[in-house]
Amino acid sequence: MQIVKNIERMQKIADKLREEKKIIGFVPTMGYLHSGHLNLVKLAKEKSDIVVMSIYVNPTQFGPNEDFSKYPRNFERDEKLAKEEGVDIIFYPESMYKDNLTFVNVENITKLLCGESRPTHFRGVATIVSKLFNIVKPHLAVFGQKDAQQVAVIQKMIDDLNFDIKLVLSPIIREKDGLAISSRNVNLNEKDRKNATILVESLRFIKRQIDEGNTNLKELIEQAKKMIELTPNAKLDYYSVVSYPEIRKIDKLEKKTLIALAVYFGKVRLIDNMIIGE
Amino acid sequence: MQIVKNIERMQKIADKLREEKKIIGFVPTMGYLHSGHLNLVKLAKEKSDIVVMSIYVNPTQFGPNEDFSKYPRNFERDEKLAKEEGVDIIFYPESMYKDNLTFVNVENITKLLCGESRPTHFRGVATIVSKLFNIVKPHLAVFGQKDAQQVAVIQKMIDDLNFDIKLVLSPIIREKDGLAISSRNVNLNEKDRKNATILVESLRFIKRQIDEGNTNLKELIEQAKKMIELTPNAKLDYYSVVSYPEIRKIDKLEKKTLIALAVYFGKVRLIDNMIIGE
Repeated sequence: MQIVKNIERMQKIADKLREEKKIIGFVPTMGYLHSGHLNLVKLAKEKSDIVVMSIYVNPTQFGPNEDFSKYPRNFERDEKLAKEEGVDIIFYPESMYKDNLTFVNVENITKLLCGESRPTHFRGVATIVSKLFNIVKPHLAVFGQKDAQQVAVIQKMIDDLNFDIKLVLSPIIREKDGLAISSRNVNLNEKDRKNATILVESLRFIKRQIDEGNTNLKELIEQAKKMIELTPNAKLDYYSVVSYPEIRKIDKLEKKTLIALAVYFGKVRLIDNMIIGE
Repeated sequence: MQIVKNIERMQKIADKLREEKKIIGFVPTMGYLHSGHLNLVKLAKEKSDIVVMSIYVNPTQFGPNEDFSKYPRNFERDEKLAKEEGVDIIFYPESMYKDNLTFVNVENITKLLCGESRPTHFRGVATIVSKLFNIVKPHLAVFGQKDAQQVAVIQKMIDDLNFDIKLVLSPIIREKDGLAISSRNVNLNEKDRKNATILVESLRFIKRQIDEGNTNLKELIEQAKKMIELTPNAKLDYYSVVSYPEIRKIDKLEKKTLIALAVYFGKVRLIDNMIIGE
């Protein structure tokens, strides 16, 4: 496994791989790898000749009062895990911005859900992903459904800016007790960690109700919100129902419906979601 | 010479050329080719194996009351001229936007000059050039200095988004009487066409004064503005002095200083500029 820190060098390697007709699969991450990331790598390996993983905690997708500095980092551990999983190249830049003035904005679908709570978040995501696409030059890139709105934003950006890159979607990977795996889970204390399963439990409650024919979404969301509110130390950020991938507010099931929530336990913000109608 | 209208086909051709280690030179245009464009092609041919010219009148860089519909178009003529000049591929898409929600914004350097008169212009330019870069996949792209602010914006976008593309600059090409060559010149009536040389004459007046040691830029700009104001049917849009390529307002000469102006003759808007200190 090769570790590349220099942008121009990564571009040269990508050019060479493409000349050799190798398919480049890309897994962008912020590091602190967990089994969710490793599942992205597995998918990338299935569909490509060379897997490039980027590890970079991107400052522009964090708001001024968010957890950029507290975001967990451990490169040695990441390096070991990536190697075990068969990553070919880690792109690990020290810095990615130099007097940056250019931003990529995806309008409309970034307004609700996490875009509402974190107004500059998706601008930062679209900008860094554009940069990484231009550096790694992949044929395909793998993203996790846990960040469902991010997937919708990146797919729209790929379409609108004509990136010649296929987005491959990986399902949400969960702990045994159902909690969606996230790098941030490590920042939860023991009690919050136990209670954090309320996110997936509330989604499963809604799913069961829908499967049984109760499609009164407003009522179901109210119920689910109460489940969160009654959980010790849990503070609801949002619990929303939107069309997917357009991320428009809806009040009844559409062809594809995204039910998504964000919850704070102390300063740790967790998200989870499910897509109905896939 | 090949004419390619389909986006995916153009991307496939670019991939193949790159596999064959051909250097792709790119000349983006809005068509209605003139000797300024043909000079861009000459430069591209010198520096690359295959020259791709795009012809597309990009709606997103025109404001609501601007001359999008009146912008001159003549593909048959363009095709002939491009072929004569040795263009290898014309990329001539019918439409480039489909429910577009994604925009590329370059901040700060788009605020003054044409960015002030045309507030969404450079957002449209950066967005279409990003799209074309992702479709044509060139090694280098040639732009004309006549659009000096555009060159600064594109170079900054290339740097910030890590496009692996070299920007090649072509000088301003002029008619015998000094008028900067532009597709819009054809929309001038005979009298305005004659008077339009006032743009370059006012710049040459400033240049001579500076060469003679008069660096009171404020006074020189005032004088130059009067030259425009006294010209029949000429209406000044702006006459500005800025640092280059940062496009910041300055009041004395910097390492590189851009002096730029825009003037209306009736509905026809003409621009011209010079860079001092190159």
